[in-house]
Amino acid sequence: MLDTLTGYLHEHFPLSGALGVAVESWDGRTLRLRAPLAPNLNHHRTAFGGSLSALAILCGWAALHLKLGEGAGRWRLVIQRSAVDFDAPVQADFTASATIPDGAEWARFLRTLERHGRARITVGGDLLSAGRATGHHEGVFVASPL
Amino acid sequence: MLDTLTGYLHEHFPLSGALGVAVESWDGRTLRLRAPLAPNLNHHRTAFGGSLSALAILCGWAALHLKLGEGAGRWRLVIQRSAVDFDAPVQADFTASATIPDGAEWARFLRTLERHGRARITVGGDLLSAGRATGHHEGVFVASPL
Repeated sequence: MLDTLTGYLHEHFPLSGALGVAVESWDGRTLRLRAPLAPNLNHHRTAFGGSLSALAILCGWAALHLKLGEGAGRWRLVIQRSAVDFDAPVQADFTASATIPDGAEWARFLRTLERHGRARITVGGDLLSAGRATGHHEGVFVASPL
Repeated sequence: MLDTLTGYLHEHFPLSGALGVAVESWDGRTLRLRAPLAPNLNHHRTAFGGSLSALAILCGWAALHLKLGEGAGRWRLVIQRSAVDFDAPVQADFTASATIPDGAEWARFLRTLERHGRARITVGGDLLSAGRATGHHEGVFVASPL
């Protein structure tokens, strides 16, 4: 399943190839995507903030895509707002996590989507490298009819 | 000068090549970077939010780098916080702009940097495509000793 998602991301988001994205894990609520440092370097030889931001946005989107499951094909799912805090330089390969909100919030999102054909949800997560958090991100996503 | 900056970005930020970044204009205060749609598509065949976010962050960083001029080499300049609003789907090639704050704010930044060896500045700008604004971004950058 994880390889299938990696392939899907590379096929539909060509920047995934340049970022070197691979799916690390998905437990039904939290998705982790990883990327190598080398293609994502900046002028200080640490990870470029734009790469971290792109991985975080992709992770939030993909977590929602996975959670929607077979229903994902019915909706247009796009990011409306992204906020990323960069707390420490990233000096090695890195991962982004994204966690779907808990049961009640997810149920509200699905109910609003079914009733009104449009709903908004916030997905947050961490940026991690070498075993510690290096930042945090939050994405507001909107689902609407295709 | 613009070609020199394009070359610098591609050399030091390898993701620039994948994004297809080129410098469009710099008037001493506002920088515009452009990127083609094709390598930055998402699953809906519009621009991937992660690409827009990466271009915006690169634009803010590069505007500060240009404005610091010969002094740029003395400082470590990194992004601390990024916020991007995506207001409309991007269906063509796109640009990000970043505008250095006005004289007093810029002077305060330089003065703090010289006095304390560390200073923070916020740079904002627009995302544009096909002649209209499709979003807005704001980046908080920190300069500190190399």
